[in-house]
Amino acid sequence: MREVTIIDVSPRDGLQIEPNIISTNDKVELINRLVASGIEKIEATSFVHPAKVPQMADASEVLNEIVSKNDIKPVVLIPNMKGFERASKHQVVELNWVTSATETFNKININMSTEENFEIFKSVLREARLADIQVCFSIAVSFGCPYEGRVPEENVLQLVERAKKLGVNRIGIADTIGMATPNEVDRLIKKVLKVAGDRPVSVHLHDTRGFGAANAYAAYLAGLRIFETSVSGIGGCPFAPGSAGNLATEDLVYLFERMGIKTNINFEKLLDTADFAAKLSSKEPLGRVRHLDRERTIEELCL
Amino acid sequence: MREVTIIDVSPRDGLQIEPNIISTNDKVELINRLVASGIEKIEATSFVHPAKVPQMADASEVLNEIVSKNDIKPVVLIPNMKGFERASKHQVVELNWVTSATETFNKININMSTEENFEIFKSVLREARLADIQVCFSIAVSFGCPYEGRVPEENVLQLVERAKKLGVNRIGIADTIGMATPNEVDRLIKKVLKVAGDRPVSVHLHDTRGFGAANAYAAYLAGLRIFETSVSGIGGCPFAPGSAGNLATEDLVYLFERMGIKTNINFEKLLDTADFAAKLSSKEPLGRVRHLDRERTIEELCL
Repeated sequence: MREVTIIDVSPRDGLQIEPNIISTNDKVELINRLVASGIEKIEATSFVHPAKVPQMADASEVLNEIVSKNDIKPVVLIPNMKGFERASKHQVVELNWVTSATETFNKININMSTEENFEIFKSVLREARLADIQVCFSIAVSFGCPYEGRVPEENVLQLVERAKKLGVNRIGIADTIGMATPNEVDRLIKKVLKVAGDRPVSVHLHDTRGFGAANAYAAYLAGLRIFETSVSGIGGCPFAPGSAGNLATEDLVYLFERMGIKTNINFEKLLDTADFAAKLSSKEPLGRVRHLDRERTIEELCL
Repeated sequence: MREVTIIDVSPRDGLQIEPNIISTNDKVELINRLVASGIEKIEATSFVHPAKVPQMADASEVLNEIVSKNDIKPVVLIPNMKGFERASKHQVVELNWVTSATETFNKININMSTEENFEIFKSVLREARLADIQVCFSIAVSFGCPYEGRVPEENVLQLVERAKKLGVNRIGIADTIGMATPNEVDRLIKKVLKVAGDRPVSVHLHDTRGFGAANAYAAYLAGLRIFETSVSGIGGCPFAPGSAGNLATEDLVYLFERMGIKTNINFEKLLDTADFAAKLSSKEPLGRVRHLDRERTIEELCL
């Protein structure tokens, strides 16, 4: 039995900041490899404007390919109703909507105020229900904003409360620029879980300052069980200065398995997938475990 | 007031694995910069056989230089009575003795059984008392051994018990190859603190798998307050395959300060020192925070 759920976001958050355009084939190959590694939920792409994020211009092609070849239904990020319309033509299991915890980040990320963004979200949620698609409500810069600095917990908790009332299927707490410290994660996640009640809550972790594993550990201790990471640690947000890569999926899987927490992921295949993802990245990804002696590392999980 | 003590071990553990011989001047400069950053305790060098660790052949010269120029009394590592004799000619405040938690690592690291090693330690401790020098008893591979794998907690706790009975001044728990997970740190450190009673206990952290910060956080929560790290994260043990760099001093200082835990260290000077240390290293050190925007990072500590 799986005790934690790991959602790999590398095809979306991992690649969106990559300056070289990755071929659709390579994106599909990455997703297929993640599926083969046992990752059940994958954020496959995003329906954002191709002029804003050119890397995601082939979102439809990627989805067509993977849905025909795999037994998974992917998660996709959408920022507006246009994105919903494009996404809903595909077999997606979940839409990921992002609202930021600060006004400035909302403005820069999507050129809307928080309230404007939330109004559109409500319409999207209604449409998604009619189309029988689940919706995750993600809160960006929940722990720190590159423009506003420290983010009041109240900003996050109010959004959680509103999303819960609307009946979203999942609430995502994102440390978009890897600013969180484990004590902050402990404090905020406990409060979020309380407000969210029966709604599943995930945390989206970056490893900018090397605190990704510490924050995952703190979130786990606080009671959270769903984690968004990126294989090999590729990634970052194009609109968030200082955002380095995500926490590496394989590092977190290694950590959980060493802690005796089952992930139901094939670690060896995951390491191969991490190597594949790293080759797509023009900068050295942040993940650590894939650089160690392969045989020894796999043995360590059986200690 | 300082709430945690950070002992920088970069001049010893950081440089000993470096294949290029660093000049005595550069070693002295590194130590002087650490002192200027407000690090009060520094493991300056080791009196090991120069044929085994050529990088430390200038131990006496380094000590002569720094003691004449600074107001600090350094810590030095010694592996035997010969090392004690060499070290005791200098003004050192503390000797660091290393016994491994496994027989195999003792054999490979110092070519002695644990009991042989401990017998010599007792003689060294007697001599050190007569010379009025403090002694730290460090336990290598406390969380995982590259040769024996998982290390029974009992191995560590028995050594702690014996060291405490002998009245050592500090007990060091070393994750020599960065194998520890935060739950293991939590469990072992709580037990060690109990057995150690009034003896100060430190933890020595590597960041091989990216869990250094998570382990420091777990150790802090368990009640530990003394941390051994290496500026910029340079380092590793020449006799421990798979040991990557140490946890970076500046990353841990940043973490503590962000958590509201006072270190009494000048962070800006420490970042400069980290850059200096990184230049001495022939491979890219593991530290993260020094790569971020300097001004923004310093601001973050005041949030």
